[in-house]
Amino acid sequence: MSRTLPEINTLDDIRDILNDLPGPDDEAAKAAAAREPQLTKPEGSLGRLEELSKWLCTWQGTHPPRMKKPRCVVFAGNHGVTAQGVSAFPSEVTYQMVANFRSGGAAINQLCKTFDIELEVCEMALDVPTADFSKEPAMGDEECAEAMAFGMDMVDGKTDVLCLGEMGIGNTTSAAAICHALFGGAAGLWTGPGTGVEGEALGRKTAVVADSVLLHKPAMTDAIDVLRCLGGRELAAIAGAVIGARLLGVPVLLDGYVSTAAAAPLQVFAPGALDHCKVAHNSLEPGHIKLSESIDKRPLLDMGMRLGEASGAALAVGVLKAAAACHSGMATFAEAGVSGKSDHE
Amino acid sequence: MSRTLPEINTLDDIRDILNDLPGPDDEAAKAAAAREPQLTKPEGSLGRLEELSKWLCTWQGTHPPRMKKPRCVVFAGNHGVTAQGVSAFPSEVTYQMVANFRSGGAAINQLCKTFDIELEVCEMALDVPTADFSKEPAMGDEECAEAMAFGMDMVDGKTDVLCLGEMGIGNTTSAAAICHALFGGAAGLWTGPGTGVEGEALGRKTAVVADSVLLHKPAMTDAIDVLRCLGGRELAAIAGAVIGARLLGVPVLLDGYVSTAAAAPLQVFAPGALDHCKVAHNSLEPGHIKLSESIDKRPLLDMGMRLGEASGAALAVGVLKAAAACHSGMATFAEAGVSGKSDHE
Repeated sequence: MSRTLPEINTLDDIRDILNDLPGPDDEAAKAAAAREPQLTKPEGSLGRLEELSKWLCTWQGTHPPRMKKPRCVVFAGNHGVTAQGVSAFPSEVTYQMVANFRSGGAAINQLCKTFDIELEVCEMALDVPTADFSKEPAMGDEECAEAMAFGMDMVDGKTDVLCLGEMGIGNTTSAAAICHALFGGAAGLWTGPGTGVEGEALGRKTAVVADSVLLHKPAMTDAIDVLRCLGGRELAAIAGAVIGARLLGVPVLLDGYVSTAAAAPLQVFAPGALDHCKVAHNSLEPGHIKLSESIDKRPLLDMGMRLGEASGAALAVGVLKAAAACHSGMATFAEAGVSGKSDHE
Repeated sequence: MSRTLPEINTLDDIRDILNDLPGPDDEAAKAAAAREPQLTKPEGSLGRLEELSKWLCTWQGTHPPRMKKPRCVVFAGNHGVTAQGVSAFPSEVTYQMVANFRSGGAAINQLCKTFDIELEVCEMALDVPTADFSKEPAMGDEECAEAMAFGMDMVDGKTDVLCLGEMGIGNTTSAAAICHALFGGAAGLWTGPGTGVEGEALGRKTAVVADSVLLHKPAMTDAIDVLRCLGGRELAAIAGAVIGARLLGVPVLLDGYVSTAAAAPLQVFAPGALDHCKVAHNSLEPGHIKLSESIDKRPLLDMGMRLGEASGAALAVGVLKAAAACHSGMATFAEAGVSGKSDHE
């Protein structure tokens, strides 16, 4: 399949794409559904692995599913809102962790090695943090569109599944604000410790989330505008990559709270826009359960992780490889000469 | 470490071993606990991956943890109780599935290939099913001891983690009866569809479980005797392999309902006997949640699987590889020049 990506200049270009996204490949889905009950196991006994192999087919547009080329992209950004003391770590850590990614010392490096995942790390203008959204919109229209276009360009159509993750001191505050703006409820429901804020600092972080949403609410026109006003460049890039993956036929594993929050505006703007995405794991960040429910997703793993940098998504690649291998490699009842359930009755 | 396995002739030999099991390696555990907070991530942010790397160290008796040589053993057995119509599949399927394992067509073959796990399949006298435990004890003392010794012998001390699984038409009935005998509660709480029985057949299966436990209760002297009276050869072999792994310093991944039920008598007989084991996944077989709770285990994965043949255990090997890789391969804050949380305050 040779597809090309459209040009993006403004957020209206994004809106146009979202209003006309390609749908599922029903034929590939049908082929997967037809093969599954023939495989030598009681029907349904591989549980979500069966769901996953069909999902891969549906959005790769092929049967059998492919899982040879997983790719992981981690976007890093800095956030003006850190001026409000919302993080336990200083902004320099964003640079330091990017350097750690590049030298192979972070968790995501080990996870990508373990599951043979290609890793790409993208610094998004770390020297120019987005504006402090407790005072003004985090990004202008073109700035946000540019970050989304950048994310879109990071998608490679030859990828079998794309893991999306982030690094950015301050970005759980951004994620919480996006969720609070999109789905309502108390700000405290969406605001968690992030890298480890607690006590008074957590109270301050919650207040920043509540006040920032109140500040921008009158001006935010839709969910895409929520991403612009309360997001950050790495979040916009994730949203852009999700769109690019849809256009190029690449299923997506969203990582934890921040990555899911980055993608959520797409689903609110255009229901179904995340059908080619799975939430890879349930982050320990307390808002993540509610966020996954809000976009009608059930995370694949629940390992009490809360690291970001696509770590949960990379871990779930193992599960997807297993799913594809079972679906493609297992013998059928006929091939193996195994009696089916009905033979007994 | 060169350790040898003791000779087993009767179940009293098993009881003697269980009363004198080797404990954890506290030094290896301490080394893991000392390294973890130095790694470049917020403390605790890898969640259960941190727990798992420490657990591997504790029971391998080494630091850093090793995950290069995972091994999977699937024991197959036939059950006299199938005469009571408790399974949706005929007993021939046990032979057919063993043949399928040997020719590489089953789910477990694909999963072992995916995670580079050595696979061993053991047929336990398939032509001589254990006695119908709804009428008499499934096994005699020496017969059960022999099956346990066989399982023990299948452990290789050079293994980094041992996945234990089973195949045996009728064996969820056996598992349910063991759980009902060990932990009480209504028989219906422990009896599920297995390969797919439902309606009237499920009622019959539940009645068989209830009646069989009533029949043997007066004579069963302890939890090991429960395994003898209500188990099967593949269940006894799993229990034996769990003991052998403990003696040889090999951590164990138990698979689903049947494998966990096979190991449960050890924990009831000698609390702590399963400290070197994790329950790999939460099986969809309804009794499994309660069983895991009863032996104080929290399954690693929850993928709605209910296939047996060590499939859930093999899937969890990916998670263990990830855990060991992160613990061993990540840079420390000092090595990477990353600011810690405290630098900020």
